[in-house]
Amino acid sequence: MISVEQPKNIVIVGGVAGGMSCATRLRRLDEKANIIVLERGKYVSYANCGIPYALGNVIKDEAKLHVQTSEKIASWFNIDVRTEVELVAIDRPNKVIHVKCVGNKNGKLHCDIENISYDKLVLALGADAFIPPMKGIDSEHVFTLQTIPDLEQIQSYIATHGCRNAAVIGGGFIGLEAAENLRLLGLNVTILEYLPHIFPPVDHDMAVPLQKEMERNGMRLLLNARITEITPTGSNKPSQILLNGTDPVEADLIIVSVGVRARTAIVEDAGIQIGKSGVIVNDTMQTSDPDIYAVGDMVETPHLVSGHPVRIALAGPANRQGRLAADNICGLSANYRGNVGTAVCKVFDLTVGVVGLSVEALRSMGRGDKTKYLTIHPSHHVGYYPGAEPMVLKVAFEADSGRLLGAQIVGKQGIDKRTDVLAMAIRAGMSVEDLEHVELGYAPPYGAAKDPVNMAGFVGGNILRGLMQPVYAEDLVKEVCFESGDGTQERRLPKKYQVVDVRTPEEFCKGHLIGAVNVPLDTLRRSLHLMDRSKKILAYCQVGYRGYLAYRILKQNGFEAVNLNGGFKAVCVGGYDSLID
Amino acid sequence: MISVEQPKNIVIVGGVAGGMSCATRLRRLDEKANIIVLERGKYVSYANCGIPYALGNVIKDEAKLHVQTSEKIASWFNIDVRTEVELVAIDRPNKVIHVKCVGNKNGKLHCDIENISYDKLVLALGADAFIPPMKGIDSEHVFTLQTIPDLEQIQSYIATHGCRNAAVIGGGFIGLEAAENLRLLGLNVTILEYLPHIFPPVDHDMAVPLQKEMERNGMRLLLNARITEITPTGSNKPSQILLNGTDPVEADLIIVSVGVRARTAIVEDAGIQIGKSGVIVNDTMQTSDPDIYAVGDMVETPHLVSGHPVRIALAGPANRQGRLAADNICGLSANYRGNVGTAVCKVFDLTVGVVGLSVEALRSMGRGDKTKYLTIHPSHHVGYYPGAEPMVLKVAFEADSGRLLGAQIVGKQGIDKRTDVLAMAIRAGMSVEDLEHVELGYAPPYGAAKDPVNMAGFVGGNILRGLMQPVYAEDLVKEVCFESGDGTQERRLPKKYQVVDVRTPEEFCKGHLIGAVNVPLDTLRRSLHLMDRSKKILAYCQVGYRGYLAYRILKQNGFEAVNLNGGFKAVCVGGYDSLID
Repeated sequence: MISVEQPKNIVIVGGVAGGMSCATRLRRLDEKANIIVLERGKYVSYANCGIPYALGNVIKDEAKLHVQTSEKIASWFNIDVRTEVELVAIDRPNKVIHVKCVGNKNGKLHCDIENISYDKLVLALGADAFIPPMKGIDSEHVFTLQTIPDLEQIQSYIATHGCRNAAVIGGGFIGLEAAENLRLLGLNVTILEYLPHIFPPVDHDMAVPLQKEMERNGMRLLLNARITEITPTGSNKPSQILLNGTDPVEADLIIVSVGVRARTAIVEDAGIQIGKSGVIVNDTMQTSDPDIYAVGDMVETPHLVSGHPVRIALAGPANRQGRLAADNICGLSANYRGNVGTAVCKVFDLTVGVVGLSVEALRSMGRGDKTKYLTIHPSHHVGYYPGAEPMVLKVAFEADSGRLLGAQIVGKQGIDKRTDVLAMAIRAGMSVEDLEHVELGYAPPYGAAKDPVNMAGFVGGNILRGLMQPVYAEDLVKEVCFESGDGTQERRLPKKYQVVDVRTPEEFCKGHLIGAVNVPLDTLRRSLHLMDRSKKILAYCQVGYRGYLAYRILKQNGFEAVNLNGGFKAVCVGGYDSLID
Repeated sequence: MISVEQPKNIVIVGGVAGGMSCATRLRRLDEKANIIVLERGKYVSYANCGIPYALGNVIKDEAKLHVQTSEKIASWFNIDVRTEVELVAIDRPNKVIHVKCVGNKNGKLHCDIENISYDKLVLALGADAFIPPMKGIDSEHVFTLQTIPDLEQIQSYIATHGCRNAAVIGGGFIGLEAAENLRLLGLNVTILEYLPHIFPPVDHDMAVPLQKEMERNGMRLLLNARITEITPTGSNKPSQILLNGTDPVEADLIIVSVGVRARTAIVEDAGIQIGKSGVIVNDTMQTSDPDIYAVGDMVETPHLVSGHPVRIALAGPANRQGRLAADNICGLSANYRGNVGTAVCKVFDLTVGVVGLSVEALRSMGRGDKTKYLTIHPSHHVGYYPGAEPMVLKVAFEADSGRLLGAQIVGKQGIDKRTDVLAMAIRAGMSVEDLEHVELGYAPPYGAAKDPVNMAGFVGGNILRGLMQPVYAEDLVKEVCFESGDGTQERRLPKKYQVVDVRTPEEFCKGHLIGAVNVPLDTLRRSLHLMDRSKKILAYCQVGYRGYLAYRILKQNGFEAVNLNGGFKAVCVGGYDSLID
């Protein structure tokens, strides 16, 4: 399977995840090839995912981030690794790249500008942190947190300036990790998020518990933040982040993490096809030039749920793409199979996991009407075994076929596990009903005979088969109306509903939906004659199960009914406070 | 979809996992049916999986094991629950069962023997703990641990007899859980296992770390134990377990857990078809009598990997089968899709997970020649994030197609997660190569950009594509020969191998394979001229990766080579001590 031609010149530009995975796989497949890796930075093959945790001293020894040194790569893999060398241009007709030394010009090249010829070129240029254009963004106390030099600069700035108030602009992955780690250093931290909620891969109701967890840990959140300017740092007056419609935020350290942009300029100049967000590649990672491959944060690959090309800036896909490019360069047939967008993130004591698309994302694609979803609140293992922790699990699926479209999970324990299980289900093209049947490991310390994933299957299967009709808190919130009388205003749900709380009186007294009457489940069958048959009954309980039982009793007794998805807990967890009495 | 005929009489015999799941689903689907649940024991719907942990006071409040009370089931589900009622016979022609009161005859029936007619009968009789026929097995200090009365009897016996030395006969799931929990009570515990290793669902090399963990926790293991007799307890002399070929074991408390046998006698008497290990059912859980369904520990269902019917005595399948039987009784089409045999078990600080078939099981089915496997030792999350714990992951697959056949995992953290992910892969019919492509959630606290599951895919894919040829420690052990000289005897591997350790000299000095020479990987390319080209090189490193790199270098330089599967660590972990110098 290995080519027996003349040694190939293979040049890889970019020496971190995708580039280095490609280079080492190439060597394993082809002992004879000339393999050159060019890296713009000082370091190759370092663990950039660990950088936020090194900032917070969670990872105490920064040296641990250096997975491989250039020397080790050279000795194990016989690869010519050149750091602080930057790509300038690609001369495709002559199969040559122009590169230049950056940094301290320490003899990594023979001259300042050098030409390197290639038989195959692999581009793993990565992505640049996006710097939103605003006044003051170039101040000395404003940083990004993407590379080891970024980390070192922030650490040194904190050490020399004694920072107390930090601001993180952007509440995505890196923003949350950066914010948490700054907080661990003892700083006051404010997160400024442009959108209505943090962590955009999940829906609003799933972001709310994350937001509460951050606030519980002493952080401040500014949502819908419209930053107009960052004022300079001065000896008398600290720097301020000025906002439209909100008071300024004081910050003597600012980290900007509002996403990344693929480094495509040079590639585009060379006439290689670029898509909406990155370099276009086929499933062998080949660009529009068959001798040029591209991998990692700079490319677009298909999202298996949306069907659209997406740029996924994560180490896992980058590593696999690099390896696949090497396979294909060496004549092994191997195809990239697209993404399901699995991700997991720690937020203090919580974990959030996500795979596929959120309901908000599906709506923005015009697929909202064809999507249903369910929310459940199972424990991560059986409740009778010590240490059971609750989770919120939200699963979206196609309304007609049941095909899984996405899952979001938040909780303290077992979140990464269910995320991965659901990632497997989505990759395998399973339907929500299929989740009923999956056979997951159970012993009391680990799960339940009906795992949360099975439970999602049961609930989703019921919705799909028409055995249960959910009503969603986010829709009810929009239907809240106000009734005036005696100079007071009262919130209520539309009159079309009889709102029936089937929990116990004790539960009811601690809080319930506006306008609800309490008919405990164990009295429901004998209370049917008290109900108004002309009105739809909105049944609910704490997490949805007794509400579902009530729904089944009501429907089979001739009532129109709906069951509140996820129960009263989903209202509380999701922050739908205006529904609560 | 719901039947609109006359109310059905549905009788369910057995009120724990499968039976009660069936009963409650029936009510949700059919508000009008007459549903009767008969349970032989005192309690329904209790969590028998928690019983070993209640014994060890890990679950401190035994009441927590009672998931549902008869009263709650009656009030929520309008189900006629009768405890302490036992099935005596099934009169199929008349669609009637004969039942009798057991226990304290507290009025659960109108008379001692009653006939109950059914339209549909669901059997969820469960399985009996198997009591091996041996002298003394019926002594008062010998117990099984299956039900709450079992638990109560053992607790009371310990309280009144002040036990110090316990023995557990059988080292399967319940045996291990029972033994660990007895140890947590401070007892000296000996496990007596008939087979050459404990925990039969896994291979010998995967059981060894479990055995070491039990010994580390002060337990004694007797493997290949051939018990001949249990001597009586006496005031002067404690009871002894007598064995063939081994000293007797003193024990003042004995728990027997050598598996269970389906309760099929009455079913067989009624002329219903019985298979090798349990009642035969189709995929709607129907027995050979279309009006009689059977679910749970008493039935055989197909194993998706072996293709053979198996009896799986676990709560998860029982629950799903009960629910499915209800669906089918109510006219909803739902099919049981067979088992992949996912299981997980805690052994002190370790977790063992298993899915599919072990290599030993595949061999016993005559499929050994068509099976390959791989062993890896990844961390449960990236090494640079604090708290990374190693695991051993063994994956078996079809030698030609790569189809996944089984996985076994042992370690401290993240074991249940990978077990479930691999259970999804096996259920989806994936090949070992497919594991390369799966996209699992990664952030430093949870995994790695190349998750252990991906790593298994990389290694398996390499084996499948002929890019790496493994040699297995279990085969090498059989090839160890002895050379006499000067009155001494020396172990060595067959002369056909040059055994080359490619680790560092420091690693080599701490222990290596017999007859190995040390050629560190970073010197290998310049040492090739020193190697004997006429001999196959057995390359190895610590966990297999550098050995694989060495293998690739050697093969591409014209050498015959093999790489030790799982490296030196697999030799140590798997207990292949005779290979170590």
